[in-house]
Amino acid sequence: MEDDYIYPPELLGSIDFEKEHLTTYDPQISFPNPEPNLLVRPLRRSDYNRGYMDLLLSALYIRDEGISQEEFEERFDKMKASDSSYIITVIEDTSTKKIIGNAVLHIELKFLQPSIKRGRLEDIAVLEGYRGKQLGKLLMDVTTILCKKVGCFRVSLHCKDKFVPLYKKFGFYIDELENIMWLQKNYLQS
Amino acid sequence: MEDDYIYPPELLGSIDFEKEHLTTYDPQISFPNPEPNLLVRPLRRSDYNRGYMDLLLSALYIRDEGISQEEFEERFDKMKASDSSYIITVIEDTSTKKIIGNAVLHIELKFLQPSIKRGRLEDIAVLEGYRGKQLGKLLMDVTTILCKKVGCFRVSLHCKDKFVPLYKKFGFYIDELENIMWLQKNYLQS
Repeated sequence: MEDDYIYPPELLGSIDFEKEHLTTYDPQISFPNPEPNLLVRPLRRSDYNRGYMDLLLSALYIRDEGISQEEFEERFDKMKASDSSYIITVIEDTSTKKIIGNAVLHIELKFLQPSIKRGRLEDIAVLEGYRGKQLGKLLMDVTTILCKKVGCFRVSLHCKDKFVPLYKKFGFYIDELENIMWLQKNYLQS
Repeated sequence: MEDDYIYPPELLGSIDFEKEHLTTYDPQISFPNPEPNLLVRPLRRSDYNRGYMDLLLSALYIRDEGISQEEFEERFDKMKASDSSYIITVIEDTSTKKIIGNAVLHIELKFLQPSIKRGRLEDIAVLEGYRGKQLGKLLMDVTTILCKKVGCFRVSLHCKDKFVPLYKKFGFYIDELENIMWLQKNYLQS
């Protein structure tokens, strides 16, 4: 079952949350069990059957039909084979056996820099019925702590204006000199 | 020697540049040989010995001591093992056997979206003595064409203001609603 995880659970287990957390909580929150029936852990290959697709589709507002279990497992295996480049952390409601939270730290390897790893935070999401419990903050906190633990030398995220104050609480700042540019869709279609 | 390349050279070979190029050149430029002694090709594992580190250090203005050949090859192998997630294209001056241009298309796998791939363009660089020959444009053009060939569904890049007009020529646009945020360095140090 150990092999079921997208990254080694020991990495999460190495977090001393009481000592290492980066922001304040009111009320205080526990890790890895923010509530008795909620568990923060790495994504598992079997999470397709715990509503992982439903969470992504609903919480990230993606219009997509989702993918089959076979496709999910194929992608999972490719991600896992990429030398722990996909640090995907979820929250499971163990009473319903559903995934209700998600956060991705994706790592790009580089040839230069003292460390080889450049991180990006993505797809932080909490299922609607579970919001207002500081779970998004918790996921963000844990994922930012993991950036250091895995040895990232630079970490960035993209966000809308309304989330800027939230991410500042975790040590992120805006670089006003940089622009994000996207490739027009018609350049990607045949 | 085939195995020396970070991605299959056939992928570059499948580009019909005369038909597929995305911007205009004055004078017109050839691919994969923009000049008789210049060759556009995938990065090779042996490029450490062709000045690849010097190019990155000087053209990307990175203050770093570089890495050893052993470290380079270790990183190369990890990148290559990541299911062609590192589409690194270079230009070699075959008369001096030095790498003089670089462009990275890095691919992140996703669980949702009709296609699995989300691309990022990075580290486009041309050695100082080779500038003014439209080689940066050529690398950018080829890399953007590759985004479509490998099946990316979304592609982005980060850039300073002065490069915005250049990237617009290749179909990129700015999303004014998004911010780039970086994690402060002291959050990444022990």
